[in-house]
Amino acid sequence: MLTVTQARERILAALTPTPAETIPLAAAHSRVLAAPVIARLTQPPADVSAMDGFALRAQDAPAGATLKIIGTAPAGHPFPGTIGPGQAIHIFTGSIIPAGADSVLIQEDSSTLGTTLTVNESCVPGKNIRKAGQDFAAGETLIAPGQRLTPGKIGLAAAANHPWLAVHRKPRIAILATGDEIALPGEPIPEGGIISSNAHALAAFVSACGGEPIILPIARDTMDAITAGAKAAAGADLLVTTGGASVGAHDLVQDSLKSQGLALDFWKIAMRPGKPLMFGGLGALPVLGLPGNPVSALVCALLFLRPAIERLSGLPGAAPATTTATLTAALKPNDHREDFLRATITQTAAGDHVTPFPVQDSGMLKTFAHATALINRPQHDPAQDSGATVQVILL
Amino acid sequence: MLTVTQARERILAALTPTPAETIPLAAAHSRVLAAPVIARLTQPPADVSAMDGFALRAQDAPAGATLKIIGTAPAGHPFPGTIGPGQAIHIFTGSIIPAGADSVLIQEDSSTLGTTLTVNESCVPGKNIRKAGQDFAAGETLIAPGQRLTPGKIGLAAAANHPWLAVHRKPRIAILATGDEIALPGEPIPEGGIISSNAHALAAFVSACGGEPIILPIARDTMDAITAGAKAAAGADLLVTTGGASVGAHDLVQDSLKSQGLALDFWKIAMRPGKPLMFGGLGALPVLGLPGNPVSALVCALLFLRPAIERLSGLPGAAPATTTATLTAALKPNDHREDFLRATITQTAAGDHVTPFPVQDSGMLKTFAHATALINRPQHDPAQDSGATVQVILL
Repeated sequence: MLTVTQARERILAALTPTPAETIPLAAAHSRVLAAPVIARLTQPPADVSAMDGFALRAQDAPAGATLKIIGTAPAGHPFPGTIGPGQAIHIFTGSIIPAGADSVLIQEDSSTLGTTLTVNESCVPGKNIRKAGQDFAAGETLIAPGQRLTPGKIGLAAAANHPWLAVHRKPRIAILATGDEIALPGEPIPEGGIISSNAHALAAFVSACGGEPIILPIARDTMDAITAGAKAAAGADLLVTTGGASVGAHDLVQDSLKSQGLALDFWKIAMRPGKPLMFGGLGALPVLGLPGNPVSALVCALLFLRPAIERLSGLPGAAPATTTATLTAALKPNDHREDFLRATITQTAAGDHVTPFPVQDSGMLKTFAHATALINRPQHDPAQDSGATVQVILL
Repeated sequence: MLTVTQARERILAALTPTPAETIPLAAAHSRVLAAPVIARLTQPPADVSAMDGFALRAQDAPAGATLKIIGTAPAGHPFPGTIGPGQAIHIFTGSIIPAGADSVLIQEDSSTLGTTLTVNESCVPGKNIRKAGQDFAAGETLIAPGQRLTPGKIGLAAAANHPWLAVHRKPRIAILATGDEIALPGEPIPEGGIISSNAHALAAFVSACGGEPIILPIARDTMDAITAGAKAAAGADLLVTTGGASVGAHDLVQDSLKSQGLALDFWKIAMRPGKPLMFGGLGALPVLGLPGNPVSALVCALLFLRPAIERLSGLPGAAPATTTATLTAALKPNDHREDFLRATITQTAAGDHVTPFPVQDSGMLKTFAHATALINRPQHDPAQDSGATVQVILL
């Protein structure tokens, strides 16, 4: 069986980023940039004042000097003239420094009487002036491609005069839940059946990762139904199935997709929960088969689907970040399957403490929904005492 | 001047959560629940198999025993009969345990020849069976109100048979950028002017916090224009202005809003960047006046606007989480203003290291856009040597 890391590497190696599309800056938050953002102007465009105060010549303005205020230049209304000896103009944050001036005396360090300005603190050249290009210069690459656009980067692209940006198209992730026993919430429940939670939980997960979920109708447990479901995924960047991925008599997903030409890469990995994880390609369409069990499906989504969506989005795609925490309960030795225990994190003065739920049955969705961390135990991890330091993935 | 903490408390105290709306489960990701999710059914609805295998009576199945397979019950197709002595049925993960059976022999521990089943590992009662209600029971409160809906909680609400959920309406955050010197990206730039980055950076920030941004047209520096802008915010849950919040001759926002009846709470706080932060109420509409400087605006958004949106959304609203990191450069003593230095985090085997950008001018949006952390220095923090442990906010 593959390890979790091997499986993730094989999935990532099979995926390529979506092509670029042009979208308005106002819609670009959290999208992944597909072309560099190059400054279309210099910022600030000229030397500007960093404060409200008076532009003047520093040589005229030792403490105690008096100068004549010859005008006012709010931001956006540059002073057209030149500052001569003994002269000053009233300026504001963002105002362009007028010709002749080389310093700004801030309002708090001055007093005025009519047009007479008295200097209370000596001025030095360059003081309170933001030089032209201090932030960036026209032609400079401000944001390299392959980065997710944060509010700060959106602001930077705006300041550099970009109303449109080229970003990777959101990966379209088709989600196919299978099973005779499942019904969508609010619909009639078959005898002995349960409500399907996977499709909507995974759709939320896909959205949270920046993908565009497409929920296909539930496929019943027949070859034809699953074949029809897979065909409906045409145009998607990834087909995610849930249920039926292992090789039981009623696990038809593999058989059905194979009948359509699935090139199966692997279908088993050494992890808990979630051993029956399938990956392959149906022509150009990558297919990720998640377990049908909701907890297993969501843990596998975290470990494999998120990196896959990242890779499709133009990011590298990486394992979930881990951190360390102190165990509050003993753990028995682990077997050959890498384990992901549902747990809660408590912040204490002595660092984070982590408490696994006493029952780890992967049928318990409530436990997963309220977990705030997964304890990540390596294969063959020996027994751990309470107080040991363990690796955790924060949820 | 107020401290950052005092200012945040006064803002939060003035805000109340938006009312509830009913939305489809499929649209509920990351929304804040406004009514409890109560289980509408029991999960599992009956005792079910946790594995693929054979349902049987444990007393009939010591290692080496042989039993007769009398039927098959896939999930969703319960076996209608009763298991008698020496009998077994083939079942699958999620199949209901038939009457008479008390244990499941997993496929891997069995061998079959026609309808004869040979037991390779002794069975014990209850083994590989998920009891009815193991996950939850009908009537149980599964998710309390006031929590943000994660993919796991969406799945749990689905499993509990909720096609619709009551959530707090997304807070509508009207954003009013002011200034004679600013133009939107791609539009003609006034002489001495710059591109407005605040409105779109803040809109992205609002979206990221779960709010609904409304970008109002830029208001020029006249009383009338700002008055018209504020009127356009009718129906919003919060009006955010940028620029013009301090008391310079051209800082008209306060004057204009006061002329409309603004009840000013405060307009100055002891922090850097971002001293001129205004908060008040225009009738029932809370108004948060952010600095015009883009870096200051975004730092203040993190410290005040995010908690405000959280509170409006039905969450408590809290200060950004801080963690600790090791400084890689010395810092001079801090003054009376709490400081938020733009910095980068590097992960090392010895923990996180944090490096402040050498120039901290709040006009440098590029620096902020590429910062991965803010170093949070308390008021009057003494000088810190390289190697000291400091508080950081991860961006």
